[in-house]
Amino acid sequence: MSKWIHKNNWRDMEELIEESKGVAIIPVGSTEQHGYHLPLGTDTYVAITLAEAAAKETKVVLAPPIWFGWSPHHMVLPGTITIRPEVLIEYLYDVIESLTQHGINKYILINGHRIVNIIWMQLAAERAQRKLGIKVKIFDPAYMSKDIVKELGFGPVGHAEEIETSHMLYCYSELVNMEKAEDNPIKPVDLYSVDPSYPNDTLCYVPSTIEVAKEHAEKAGGTTGEPTKASKEKGKIYHEHLVKNLVKIIKDLQQEN
Amino acid sequence: MSKWIHKNNWRDMEELIEESKGVAIIPVGSTEQHGYHLPLGTDTYVAITLAEAAAKETKVVLAPPIWFGWSPHHMVLPGTITIRPEVLIEYLYDVIESLTQHGINKYILINGHRIVNIIWMQLAAERAQRKLGIKVKIFDPAYMSKDIVKELGFGPVGHAEEIETSHMLYCYSELVNMEKAEDNPIKPVDLYSVDPSYPNDTLCYVPSTIEVAKEHAEKAGGTTGEPTKASKEKGKIYHEHLVKNLVKIIKDLQQEN
Amino acid sequence: MSKWIHKNNWRDMEELIEESKGVAIIPVGSTEQHGYHLPLGTDTYVAITLAEAAAKETKVVLAPPIWFGWSPHHMVLPGTITIRPEVLIEYLYDVIESLTQHGINKYILINGHRIVNIIWMQLAAERAQRKLGIKVKIFDPAYMSKDIVKELGFGPVGHAEEIETSHMLYCYSELVNMEKAEDNPIKPVDLYSVDPSYPNDTLCYVPSTIEVAKEHAEKAGGTTGEPTKASKEKGKIYHEHLVKNLVKIIKDLQQEN
Amino acid sequence: MSKWIHKNNWRDMEELIEESKGVAIIPVGSTEQHGYHLPLGTDTYVAITLAEAAAKETKVVLAPPIWFGWSPHHMVLPGTITIRPEVLIEYLYDVIESLTQHGINKYILINGHRIVNIIWMQLAAERAQRKLGIKVKIFDPAYMSKDIVKELGFGPVGHAEEIETSHMLYCYSELVNMEKAEDNPIKPVDLYSVDPSYPNDTLCYVPSTIEVAKEHAEKAGGTTGEPTKASKEKGKIYHEHLVKNLVKIIKDLQQEN
Amino acid sequence: MSKWIHKNNWRDMEELIEESKGVAIIPVGSTEQHGYHLPLGTDTYVAITLAEAAAKETKVVLAPPIWFGWSPHHMVLPGTITIRPEVLIEYLYDVIESLTQHGINKYILINGHRIVNIIWMQLAAERAQRKLGIKVKIFDPAYMSKDIVKELGFGPVGHAEEIETSHMLYCYSELVNMEKAEDNPIKPVDLYSVDPSYPNDTLCYVPSTIEVAKEHAEKAGGTTGEPTKASKEKGKIYHEHLVKNLVKIIKDLQQEN
Amino acid sequence: MSKWIHKNNWRDMEELIEESKGVAIIPVGSTEQHGYHLPLGTDTYVAITLAEAAAKETKVVLAPPIWFGWSPHHMVLPGTITIRPEVLIEYLYDVIESLTQHGINKYILINGHRIVNIIWMQLAAERAQRKLGIKVKIFDPAYMSKDIVKELGFGPVGHAEEIETSHMLYCYSELVNMEKAEDNPIKPVDLYSVDPSYPNDTLCYVPSTIEVAKEHAEKAGGTTGEPTKASKEKGKIYHEHLVKNLVKIIKDLQQEN
Repeated sequence: MSKWIHKNNWRDMEELIEESKGVAIIPVGSTEQHGYHLPLGTDTYVAITLAEAAAKETKVVLAPPIWFGWSPHHMVLPGTITIRPEVLIEYLYDVIESLTQHGINKYILINGHRIVNIIWMQLAAERAQRKLGIKVKIFDPAYMSKDIVKELGFGPVGHAEEIETSHMLYCYSELVNMEKAEDNPIKPVDLYSVDPSYPNDTLCYVPSTIEVAKEHAEKAGGTTGEPTKASKEKGKIYHEHLVKNLVKIIKDLQQEN
Repeated sequence: MSKWIHKNNWRDMEELIEESKGVAIIPVGSTEQHGYHLPLGTDTYVAITLAEAAAKETKVVLAPPIWFGWSPHHMVLPGTITIRPEVLIEYLYDVIESLTQHGINKYILINGHRIVNIIWMQLAAERAQRKLGIKVKIFDPAYMSKDIVKELGFGPVGHAEEIETSHMLYCYSELVNMEKAEDNPIKPVDLYSVDPSYPNDTLCYVPSTIEVAKEHAEKAGGTTGEPTKASKEKGKIYHEHLVKNLVKIIKDLQQEN
Repeated sequence: MSKWIHKNNWRDMEELIEESKGVAIIPVGSTEQHGYHLPLGTDTYVAITLAEAAAKETKVVLAPPIWFGWSPHHMVLPGTITIRPEVLIEYLYDVIESLTQHGINKYILINGHRIVNIIWMQLAAERAQRKLGIKVKIFDPAYMSKDIVKELGFGPVGHAEEIETSHMLYCYSELVNMEKAEDNPIKPVDLYSVDPSYPNDTLCYVPSTIEVAKEHAEKAGGTTGEPTKASKEKGKIYHEHLVKNLVKIIKDLQQEN
Repeated sequence: MSKWIHKNNWRDMEELIEESKGVAIIPVGSTEQHGYHLPLGTDTYVAITLAEAAAKETKVVLAPPIWFGWSPHHMVLPGTITIRPEVLIEYLYDVIESLTQHGINKYILINGHRIVNIIWMQLAAERAQRKLGIKVKIFDPAYMSKDIVKELGFGPVGHAEEIETSHMLYCYSELVNMEKAEDNPIKPVDLYSVDPSYPNDTLCYVPSTIEVAKEHAEKAGGTTGEPTKASKEKGKIYHEHLVKNLVKIIKDLQQEN
Repeated sequence: MSKWIHKNNWRDMEELIEESKGVAIIPVGSTEQHGYHLPLGTDTYVAITLAEAAAKETKVVLAPPIWFGWSPHHMVLPGTITIRPEVLIEYLYDVIESLTQHGINKYILINGHRIVNIIWMQLAAERAQRKLGIKVKIFDPAYMSKDIVKELGFGPVGHAEEIETSHMLYCYSELVNMEKAEDNPIKPVDLYSVDPSYPNDTLCYVPSTIEVAKEHAEKAGGTTGEPTKASKEKGKIYHEHLVKNLVKIIKDLQQEN
Repeated sequence: MSKWIHKNNWRDMEELIEESKGVAIIPVGSTEQHGYHLPLGTDTYVAITLAEAAAKETKVVLAPPIWFGWSPHHMVLPGTITIRPEVLIEYLYDVIESLTQHGINKYILINGHRIVNIIWMQLAAERAQRKLGIKVKIFDPAYMSKDIVKELGFGPVGHAEEIETSHMLYCYSELVNMEKAEDNPIKPVDLYSVDPSYPNDTLCYVPSTIEVAKEHAEKAGGTTGEPTKASKEKGKIYHEHLVKNLVKIIKDLQQEN
């Protein structure tokens, strides 16, 4: 039986909520440019595939995916859709509030869109915790894979780079076009990086200005990093590492009352 | 090649936007109870299947589906998710505004959720037309099938009734559970009906109060109408009628500059 | 004794609320162009006259009229005033919330402005029902007269057409200037109509773009329909039909607890 | 010819706007308790009568009246309607913005509701001036009559007191019920008064708490002041003083470009 | 021990709240031009010095100062910072709501920015009183000194005039540059004044349009009034008068339960 | 000459803006519990001292400090003030917009309140960059000291721990009460840490629920970490490291046009 709410009728859902011990996953992604070789829906696919994999190993409710995120800096390339963060906060809050009325009280927000979405998700999560008396965890692949990326020989977190590309190659190879992949190596920048594991000093992340975004778009089609180093095998290790941790978090939450 | 934005990379998207002559479909549904026999995602599936069918016959851009609508009166049954209409207006507006930046200037909003979603979609559509200088049409299956439902022997528009059930049987039979379908025939009500083709006097639609919704939920599991009269064959006729009109609207829009 | 709140002092009001069994009418109109021959306040006058007529036959509280509605598409002609629908929703909600504190728990919103106002009134009505535990009905003359307009030989619902003109001739003849009335017959449009009783397929209503509105304004001074076919006699039949139904709705509500 | 927008058709309005040299009056009142002897609409009637009187002596556009204001402290007595000030600001702003599109660029807001409405009207007025490049004056009878009230033997500004009562007696005697008038003399309060001409130290006005409002309501039915001292003759002098100043302001504005 | 919240740790604060009998001062100012001779922070310094003086004579909690107010009309001169009033209302409300959770239930808002800030502070104060069940007083030096300014030979309330300058000379002489002070005497204006003690007729205050503000800025560097008449001695008398009244208000509030 | 806007008059400010080459610092802090030994204003003091130190070595404009941040999880201890993040975003945006009108186009937001404030500052910063065409950097001491804290023997980032305490001892020793400092060592938590340099896997930060916050408050008075290990000497090294980087960022910005 599927764990997706939208594929079930309400009586099956009633049962599934009971079995889940009140734990639901909400997959949150984006629709934004991912270089020449990855589809615009990459971030949402990442969230969906992790949710489905965890649902195979645990009883957990899966909310329908949220396909749009906050992507103002990627609007320079066609197909990108961006929603104002103040709207996304309210939208996500209402999803959580609705499910809370049906007895779900522990949420894992899987963020396929990395640091940009985390910002507004934190605001929605805090308000939901405080107002609804529930628990919310934000599961972000980039943060959750810090200890494995070095082993895999991946460079720092960029955009449409070897990490995302390997993951997509393993889970959705039909949507990846490796011949078109183009590298745009990340050069160390003084006092700045978006990579959460970057060891140097850092200024905090603010999405790029339009000028910087345009430059970036012209250079390598919006890629930051080295997608040509990606492989399905590395994607598999990365994916399984994430799923293992996600399953652990679900089980921990199910043991809390 | 898929017409869904999320399945393409931005360079393919650029080409597809060009070929579409600026016409995009945004499928809008809901996640709400649909009786004992239909999945919670029914309204969104309806919007998706129409979008995909039209995309087979025309060049048109398909935006990722919006899985949540305004469903306050269905919150009495588990799994239903409702977003405040003031949030949905802003959300949809941002989707349209984003795509307008990429050269799309004619939109068809397919509404799988009938009269309830139409309300806030009209507000978003008007603002988008006025502020962005574009055109927006709202395509609603219930309105668009007025001249065919009588022929098919369907009763008035209800909820999870023979119309929706036939459509789902034809397009997503694996998600329909006909053995569980239960009828709740629609009795004529004085001065009121939600059916747009209902000939008598009428008060305007306002979503049910919680009390009425609870009564309704207890009676036939949230169904209004006679789903046992549904059939795949009728679903086919109904679907093709809708697709034919949808294709016509797309082609008309493509001829406008 | 007048039933209008603004004409009474609070002690008389206290008594009147008691006698009304908790039923109030809120007349909602607009200030917008109505062709060469009807005053800008037509929609509000329509709501006021119906409210006053019903108040002669029943005990019911009348709230002061709301003179402004949502009229973005009529801004091309002078004197039109439009309020953003998101503001109107809050405004109307506050009126209802205030009266609910004084013991009124059943509301009839008389909409003189037809399909355009219904949209935001539905949103206010739903929220009021849900948050305040009250009942709200939307009474719209165009919907409520479906079964009578054909008999009267009226064409489809337009703007400042024979229906509104007849009604104004009967109730406010001093404000109508029949010599200036100019016809602009409604031609059947494929897949579209704003008339709720129109039998063909239909796309849902969205207020006209500025371009279409300008064209329309230049053509017949903003009229759509055939006002020269109006008469005081037809206006009388139309008015009495509406009042009869309105009185019935008030009495039905008074019998509910 | 009437100067009220709602009584004219758009072509007459076009002419009237031209003749007014861009000056419009927007009458703003309230629907709130006014003691045992005055109607709930008193504040709006005050604004309307001043607008009409000035319109007899000058060419000026009159917008339809706004019947609801901010009256949280009067909600303790039935019939009172209060709108949140943040909603009123947006509502009034939209009225001004609409009329500005039709060539009106100088506004006089007549405030029948005294110090409570002034607050939000100032915010709307400032924003309208800054964003629309127009001029807005707020005309408040209590401020505008400082030099005449002493002569007339009136006490300080209260509520439903001799000033308002005299004015209503002169302009709308049929709505005043003098036998029911009950006095509630204003005792000097240390460090505080709402009267703009009060000479002592003062804390700034904040609408009463519910507790204070309840006490007040029980004492003299919501009256503050001495309505039994009112007379039609004093009302005439007061009214004419206000109209004279209002006409002067209109003429001054008409001479500015 | 300091009474400023920010200088204490929470345990000392706990004690101080207890001793204050629930009374707190929130100093609210602005950062805006004050002519050639006074610092941009003048309004906030005024609020701070009054708060500190009162705190020497009573047990009262002092919230950290709010350095920004509503100053749209002073944006023509550099350094001025203005916040939208709708934002300031929410900001101040949250400060009050936070402190209410810690047991403070009586507030004095000291307004160093005169009539412009009063507007939005009234809205925040009313909401806080009604929603939180607390008491809020607005203490404004211009209103609170009506009976003393004439004695001191001060002219009407202007901007950066002899009143503010004397006060700053007494409390913060190191921030005043008397050699640069330039007079701009206030000429009587028909039907208008911002001075709360002005005896004639008056239109209500609305912040100046940009055009008027520019003219004003060019004339005397933003000063309105006669700062060269200021003196430290007069500032002392003015300051002590204000502090005496402020202390009285605090003590009165402490005796209420 | 002071660089603080509020201490200067507008003509000096005009000059200072010119000299700064358009670079301003906005110090943003909080008023929240900081254990038994640090004042509630600690976060704001941290931002202020860094701003002042940098202003000694460069020409830079200093905006008045923002004393309130987002602190929902510290409301369990008295004196804490929290503002809703959606309000803070608008507030900060308006500060930036105001200064941009005066010619400042490069901003450094110094965040004394660590990870909690960063969230809403990122949203304000992005919007300001996009809408105003300016540059905004967020300078956070915890991020900016990653490479130095280990050397100093500091444990992970907590709250009121040895890092903040050392910094306050060096810059504001009179506000620190070391005898009251109480340790609450940070125990490694599986899959979670708020320390940006923490090497393990991590869930993203969400402010604590009220339950967790209460537990925390009872345990060590709100401290997380080991303040008894703090020293003035370490504070000096830490401070100077931060100031050096801050000065570098200012100078880099001044060289950009």
